[in-house]
Amino acid sequence: MTGNSLDHHLQRYAQRTSSMKASAIRALFSVANRPEVVSLAGGMPFLQSLPLEALAADTAAMIAEQGLVAFQYGSGQGILELREQICEVMALEGIRAHPDDVVVTVGSQMALDLTTRIFIDPGDVILAEAPSYVGALTTFASYQADVVHVASDENGLVPSALVVAIEACRAAKRRIKMLYVIPNYHNPAGTTLSAERRPIIAQICRDADITLLEDNPYGLLGFDDTVHRAIRADDADNVVYLGSFSKTFAPGLRVGWVLAPHAVREKLVMANESATLNPPVFNQMLISMYLAKYDWQSQIKAYQVTYAERRDAMLGALETMMPAGTTWTVPTGGFYVWVTLPEGFDTAAMLPRAVSARVAYVPGTAFYADGFGSRQMRLSYCFPTADRIVEGVRRLAGVVNGELEVMKTFGSHAYRAVSGPQSPSPDTA
Amino acid sequence: MTGNSLDHHLQRYAQRTSSMKASAIRALFSVANRPEVVSLAGGMPFLQSLPLEALAADTAAMIAEQGLVAFQYGSGQGILELREQICEVMALEGIRAHPDDVVVTVGSQMALDLTTRIFIDPGDVILAEAPSYVGALTTFASYQADVVHVASDENGLVPSALVVAIEACRAAKRRIKMLYVIPNYHNPAGTTLSAERRPIIAQICRDADITLLEDNPYGLLGFDDTVHRAIRADDADNVVYLGSFSKTFAPGLRVGWVLAPHAVREKLVMANESATLNPPVFNQMLISMYLAKYDWQSQIKAYQVTYAERRDAMLGALETMMPAGTTWTVPTGGFYVWVTLPEGFDTAAMLPRAVSARVAYVPGTAFYADGFGSRQMRLSYCFPTADRIVEGVRRLAGVVNGELEVMKTFGSHAYRAVSGPQSPSPDTA
Repeated sequence: MTGNSLDHHLQRYAQRTSSMKASAIRALFSVANRPEVVSLAGGMPFLQSLPLEALAADTAAMIAEQGLVAFQYGSGQGILELREQICEVMALEGIRAHPDDVVVTVGSQMALDLTTRIFIDPGDVILAEAPSYVGALTTFASYQADVVHVASDENGLVPSALVVAIEACRAAKRRIKMLYVIPNYHNPAGTTLSAERRPIIAQICRDADITLLEDNPYGLLGFDDTVHRAIRADDADNVVYLGSFSKTFAPGLRVGWVLAPHAVREKLVMANESATLNPPVFNQMLISMYLAKYDWQSQIKAYQVTYAERRDAMLGALETMMPAGTTWTVPTGGFYVWVTLPEGFDTAAMLPRAVSARVAYVPGTAFYADGFGSRQMRLSYCFPTADRIVEGVRRLAGVVNGELEVMKTFGSHAYRAVSGPQSPSPDTA
Repeated sequence: MTGNSLDHHLQRYAQRTSSMKASAIRALFSVANRPEVVSLAGGMPFLQSLPLEALAADTAAMIAEQGLVAFQYGSGQGILELREQICEVMALEGIRAHPDDVVVTVGSQMALDLTTRIFIDPGDVILAEAPSYVGALTTFASYQADVVHVASDENGLVPSALVVAIEACRAAKRRIKMLYVIPNYHNPAGTTLSAERRPIIAQICRDADITLLEDNPYGLLGFDDTVHRAIRADDADNVVYLGSFSKTFAPGLRVGWVLAPHAVREKLVMANESATLNPPVFNQMLISMYLAKYDWQSQIKAYQVTYAERRDAMLGALETMMPAGTTWTVPTGGFYVWVTLPEGFDTAAMLPRAVSARVAYVPGTAFYADGFGSRQMRLSYCFPTADRIVEGVRRLAGVVNGELEVMKTFGSHAYRAVSGPQSPSPDTA
């Protein structure tokens, strides 16, 4: 034993390991599990409307009749029947694809991991919206990518800002590999990329020789019967598209997918095999059975109705209770509202006090690779009931107003000095 | 579009992607699926003895009663109850461990991937037995590790050869990070590391400041009521231990685990979250239910009896049918026999002819990072019935004798020249 260090493996880790950090998501799941806390933090779908009794019976039949296949090893690309059904799901967004170009993964997080794995060398630049999905930033960091954020507004990523960012990176001799975009009901921003901007952004990426990574877990969860046309629908050659059943069905099976140009798909299958041999056959067959046998589009409709009501509850409560100077986005689908507090706030520092007041959120800095977002926060309306959402916003407004009082009395400089740790304390984990 | 290249993404891939290659395993699964071929290639467990009807009913009850948990997101480390049960499983091999140091993964392949991810920088050396598991070699290559094989004999890894290999690497200023060992019923060698050598090898690794990665999917599948004491049982600080339910229960759920020293465990959880957010909750609950409610040790016993009969059938057929000069290992558990053909043979080149003769195996070169193993092959006895195994060996012996005739007539140089492609042709994939 080397003895001196508490972790004598310390000298043995890979360089990339120092880029790994405990996920903000992990702390939040723990917080969310405490029943007295109204969690506006986690992105857990509300599964109560799933037909559990029927699923139980059909899964039992599947095990009894096809258990020897379901419990066996399978293909590294995923089972063909499910890949065909995935193509039907994507067709709703205008995508024409061949099942041969689909790779099933352990959630779309694994698709994100594998795509990053095959494209990113340490120091390569990934362009991403400002803000962007915390789980993607974690994965990008674990492959030692440099994330450069590109300005986004209420219509999503700003094309002119993308051009400027590309030019700036090129001028600094930095190698840009990908643009990472969540076009629909953005996590965390709650915004949707406008139809006008989509082909413009795709063209910019093609011209700049940058792969466009389109991450679309929420696309079918719009509240106004609109399904936005995927960027991939008009660009089969340069877009790698990520999809998921976590929000349209259930996340506990961890089934997602990636649709990629054929040559890229081959690399992804190899990476998938290297990572897991194959995604779980059982889970794929269960979802395939669900898609074949159930009215899954009506289930999505039920989710839409539930989430729309909760979005309304949250927006109404914010409007009524939050102090002047607070702004937020107005999502037309998905799970999230992005809130900006007045100048001087520090949402990471405020989180322990919020949890003391029995409400939780995700501090904005989690969604930036560069420390921005300190006066912003992500609020989720997907899981708590409307009443609980209103109560949660009431508690949150109480905390925010309390902070404002302190700032008015002592000045925001003093407020920052006493505001404690910059990241969630053990208390909140 | 850049246009000229068929894959215009070619310039965008990460360096590591060039180290990825199509898995030999993939081609083999396809071959194994053709009913007219006796596949002695794949390592698929024989699941027919699983109590499918009972599992169907109990899984249905689990969905009906706990579906909202089973279908939801979960912890990046895995559910506590399963981790406690995993500690009970490992106790059979003398391991005393705390559930806090266990991380559940998507099969032990994912544990292998994550362990490699946190320890290996490009160019780092991983020491491994000669031969070693093809899926590990694929993963190590995908992280750009340099695998250095260490001589192994019928008692497993040779300690003196390990010392020599370490010294040679050190003299060449190469950085050794890990020793990868499959101590029980080795894949592909079929050998077991002797009890005498285990503490010696552990001590060599500690002295050399090298992490010992103990991969043990087959440990409970011995044919003589012996359970070999794990290396980890006597070295909690320097051993990272990988386990799996794929061979003792079923692979289609993809549930494995890693037991690691606490500081390493923390890194593995972060890597697990980055890769998948969390392993599928549903699958963990199903296995936890199985371990709690079923006599899983009797199920393992049933597997042992089945595989022992098949091992006997294979060894008997090899003894009767293979030409003089052919040798093989005698496994006391697990799935595999490692066959060495006489000087001059090339098992990769011979594979297309074997498949034409309706028998499949894995060429030995798949199990070496350095091109060795050309006259060796792995034969699996886990999946086909005893009759089919005998028929398969009969076909194989026919092919081998045919090759011998050619060599006798034209010389082995000519044999090599006409023996065709060095890797499985599209015909065999």
